[in-house]
Amino acid sequence: MEIKLNTDVLSDNNAAAMHNRKQFSNTKTLVINVMSSPGAGKTTLLEKTVKALQGKYRIGVIEGDLATQKDADRIRATGAKAVQINTHGGCHLDARMIAKVLPSFDLNQIDILFIENVGNLVCPSGYDLGQSHKIAVLSVPEGNDKIPKYPTMFNRTEMVILNKIDLLPMVDFSVEEAVEDLNGLNPNSRLISLSAKTEEGMSEWIQWIEEAYQKCAVQRL
Amino acid sequence: MEIKLNTDVLSDNNAAAMHNRKQFSNTKTLVINVMSSPGAGKTTLLEKTVKALQGKYRIGVIEGDLATQKDADRIRATGAKAVQINTHGGCHLDARMIAKVLPSFDLNQIDILFIENVGNLVCPSGYDLGQSHKIAVLSVPEGNDKIPKYPTMFNRTEMVILNKIDLLPMVDFSVEEAVEDLNGLNPNSRLISLSAKTEEGMSEWIQWIEEAYQKCAVQRL
Repeated sequence: MEIKLNTDVLSDNNAAAMHNRKQFSNTKTLVINVMSSPGAGKTTLLEKTVKALQGKYRIGVIEGDLATQKDADRIRATGAKAVQINTHGGCHLDARMIAKVLPSFDLNQIDILFIENVGNLVCPSGYDLGQSHKIAVLSVPEGNDKIPKYPTMFNRTEMVILNKIDLLPMVDFSVEEAVEDLNGLNPNSRLISLSAKTEEGMSEWIQWIEEAYQKCAVQRL
Repeated sequence: MEIKLNTDVLSDNNAAAMHNRKQFSNTKTLVINVMSSPGAGKTTLLEKTVKALQGKYRIGVIEGDLATQKDADRIRATGAKAVQINTHGGCHLDARMIAKVLPSFDLNQIDILFIENVGNLVCPSGYDLGQSHKIAVLSVPEGNDKIPKYPTMFNRTEMVILNKIDLLPMVDFSVEEAVEDLNGLNPNSRLISLSAKTEEGMSEWIQWIEEAYQKCAVQRL
């Protein structure tokens, strides 16, 4: 019974995700679903990313949180359009929540749409939102054991942004071990180390986005 | 339909939690359910807590994770009995999972049982495990916005352990703001600042546990 309902929920979600994906494809919008633990630095990463891409690309951001408008306010301060979804206790975004806020954007005027999921290293990975790419942010103070301990997240994402590397001298974390663990669990994923705060390493991430945007545009020609 | 099923799941959980609570009461075992984001430092806190209480109290630990035995191994290295539950993708512990592993302990020989929940600041707070106390661990690098952004966790717990205060000089975090936010959201909760790593501030937490154990024992006379 429980399994049946979950199947129904996921199949409803997949139908909505397919609908979102079709819209994104029609408007040639690159959509990146960003997931992590609470406090891994998703919003700071997006603030800095928007600033780096602004001028060259038209950016939109959807923010997911249980409560408050805090993250959308931070993104709006960069000048980008941001819409906040509050899940009121829900532990992840789903494709219907995204569908509901899409009319707030003119997708024809958006090149790249970032979706910042609810801070949660478990539930969000199971829900397709119709995005082009799913990435995970992991922060150095969380420790080396997170990749093996949260396999459903790191198995279902194609990139790990290892954030807060400015704290490496202060905490016990081995970047090499994280790369090895990721290679063992999901050889199709890759890891980029950076500090959104100091902006060290940001260029590799920005380059990845620009390449993803180019590929996306070519596929749609 | 979905709501009905959730109600059923929660009512099944509550029945199992009540059964667990009765056992804990019969054996005079203080049970503390410890919840947090991934990487907030629950396991390090429990390692240091077990070491501080050992000799005076008989300690048991239940560890919850999606995968691996890593946390139970760390606790066993302190000499305490530890049992690992793997949820295989599940985002929280529930009362039936706890009931299933309780026979691994001789509860008559356990004064204090810690349950380390799955690292997740959303889902675990909704599930009564039959514990005496529910506490949340928040770590300084996660940032000040977590208390307002995750109200279901901080509303349903009676204490916040603010961990990793050794990183305060390196990150943007105001302890005063966290105390204010917590007072505003849940005046019945309190905040203890500490660093499980350096052990600064641990004595207040240990004292709280010892007082909770005394109250618990008196109630059961």
